[in-house]
Amino acid sequence: MDYALRQQRLQSELEPLKLGALLLTHLPNIRYLCGFTGSSGVLLLRAGRPVFFTDGRYAAQARAEVAGARVTIANGPPLAAAAKFAAQHKLPALGIESEHMTLAARAGLRRALRGKVRLREVGPLVERQRMVKDAAEIALIRQAVNLGAALLDTALKAVRPGVLETEVAAELEYAARRQGAEGMAFETIVAAGPRSALPHGVASANPIPQRGFVILDFGVILHGYCSDMTRTVHVGKMSSAERRMYQAVREAQQAASSAVRAGVACAQVDRAARAVLRRAGLARYFTHSTGHGVGLQIHESPRLGKAQPELLQPGMVVTIEPGVYVPGRGGVRIEDMLVVTDGGAEVLTPAPKELIEL
Amino acid sequence: MDYALRQQRLQSELEPLKLGALLLTHLPNIRYLCGFTGSSGVLLLRAGRPVFFTDGRYAAQARAEVAGARVTIANGPPLAAAAKFAAQHKLPALGIESEHMTLAARAGLRRALRGKVRLREVGPLVERQRMVKDAAEIALIRQAVNLGAALLDTALKAVRPGVLETEVAAELEYAARRQGAEGMAFETIVAAGPRSALPHGVASANPIPQRGFVILDFGVILHGYCSDMTRTVHVGKMSSAERRMYQAVREAQQAASSAVRAGVACAQVDRAARAVLRRAGLARYFTHSTGHGVGLQIHESPRLGKAQPELLQPGMVVTIEPGVYVPGRGGVRIEDMLVVTDGGAEVLTPAPKELIEL
Repeated sequence: MDYALRQQRLQSELEPLKLGALLLTHLPNIRYLCGFTGSSGVLLLRAGRPVFFTDGRYAAQARAEVAGARVTIANGPPLAAAAKFAAQHKLPALGIESEHMTLAARAGLRRALRGKVRLREVGPLVERQRMVKDAAEIALIRQAVNLGAALLDTALKAVRPGVLETEVAAELEYAARRQGAEGMAFETIVAAGPRSALPHGVASANPIPQRGFVILDFGVILHGYCSDMTRTVHVGKMSSAERRMYQAVREAQQAASSAVRAGVACAQVDRAARAVLRRAGLARYFTHSTGHGVGLQIHESPRLGKAQPELLQPGMVVTIEPGVYVPGRGGVRIEDMLVVTDGGAEVLTPAPKELIEL
Repeated sequence: MDYALRQQRLQSELEPLKLGALLLTHLPNIRYLCGFTGSSGVLLLRAGRPVFFTDGRYAAQARAEVAGARVTIANGPPLAAAAKFAAQHKLPALGIESEHMTLAARAGLRRALRGKVRLREVGPLVERQRMVKDAAEIALIRQAVNLGAALLDTALKAVRPGVLETEVAAELEYAARRQGAEGMAFETIVAAGPRSALPHGVASANPIPQRGFVILDFGVILHGYCSDMTRTVHVGKMSSAERRMYQAVREAQQAASSAVRAGVACAQVDRAARAVLRRAGLARYFTHSTGHGVGLQIHESPRLGKAQPELLQPGMVVTIEPGVYVPGRGGVRIEDMLVVTDGGAEVLTPAPKELIEL
């Protein structure tokens, strides 16, 4: 990872803000900028060499991982150590991440700075940068997506009437770990029968019924990057209404995927999915947005929702995941990950979307 | 769970603050107060019936789960819907959770309120309440701890030279899921050989070496409650120095556990562990605090650290987990969960602590 380039780009964004130093407290942003993967640390970007602060638990790990910053082991909370450093070095002002710093954390920081350093809120500068993935990131995301997609077979083998949703999740997560995943990217969703009408039905202790849809939505973390995919299968024979529902979601997913290319507004991709579902009379059952960015975190910018004017750029990695959820009956969602290219988009998720009856 | 009682207790804490309404945005606090387990929602506590706001994805789930509050499905972000409600109902002031609300969230809230409702920061009121577990919570924690402890055998069977740390984690997590865990409470730590000197060495792709300590630190989530335990075993025969190190940690763990009882300061428990390690000449290798509260979250108050004057109360559930980490050589940590009782403490974790050579 080219941490120096990332830091340099961020520095160049601080100049127009007339901000000499920026205190990063959001761990995914810190990982992005210097490679630290632990759970406690802050990164101080300034004119000279950046300084990374962590606590004693991470001394060895920080020295092994952190690139492009001096590592300081704090004798207490890293934020307090960074404040002390800023005051001692007479930094006139310090940018803080307004989307991540809590009111209490700022109050503590102010106390530690004793009026010597002014705090200035900045928006999601690093998140804006992270939105567009570089080649090294796309390569890692591709690996995560491939590992994730290979788990579908394992899950399908486990799905049959009477098996608990958590048992399906167990098989899938076990296979993920065996194949080297660092963990799951989010709580695995296995939502069967009436539970498939829950857009966010994490695997429960309920058994899979004799017939009905089963939504499988899962992702892995590999080398820090997340995958995210959904497939919906049907246990037993579908009714014609269920078949129409599945096909409508599949077409909506295809239409939205085809709309993805550089220069197109996120809202337009969302509209493409919604238009198909409207024609099928199912639009009111599509209760979430069409997709979201994925990277070091499972939900990143951009959001592909109704009111998002943001334009897609080459290198953005997004999900396309329309769904319909009919209370009391069931639901269908189909989700791929795509990378935006100059001329269009590449579907990263290598898994079929044909209707499967088990 | 007695949500009504919990809400009532919180209401009584608002009175001396002369605060008629409180906006809860921290999900574990919301779950504690009304039972909602999803990932998007806010709870507005006020003189009348509390109102819970979520988005369309959680409509069915919220209606099934939420107790003691009216459920409102927002057509957009729940926080914006709550702001609208507060302005319409002319609430004079609204408490916000200063330890959880970000600067950006408050700015958005202020814009939505248009000066009609004053915002007032409050501290960790709900966390203070959650610190002392009620009988129903202790029963659930006991179940989680028992499930967690039963996984140790599975892990020990997997530990042998050449097996990857992630493979050990895979076996352990698979068994957890098969036995009904909703997930792991944190990233499983399997740190073998030199990696055992990392206090926070999450399972890596490294193989277990021919000899050395292996730290296993893991926990499950069951019915929303977390377990947390650590055992350290040794692959191959220990040197006498390693044996002394293990025994010192074990004695430190015992000394700290024996110090746990209602009315004792957290710092005193921490000192009990440190004193044993000091006598063994190992105190400088003990680089973290002795323990922490556990409940709906893996790290809760109180913290059992050097400078914590907080007094233990009956019903608090804490870990006792001293460790020593000698860079380049290896480390040992032993951790149980305990519940504070009137006369002392009950060790919840049913697993032996004898030195095991594999």
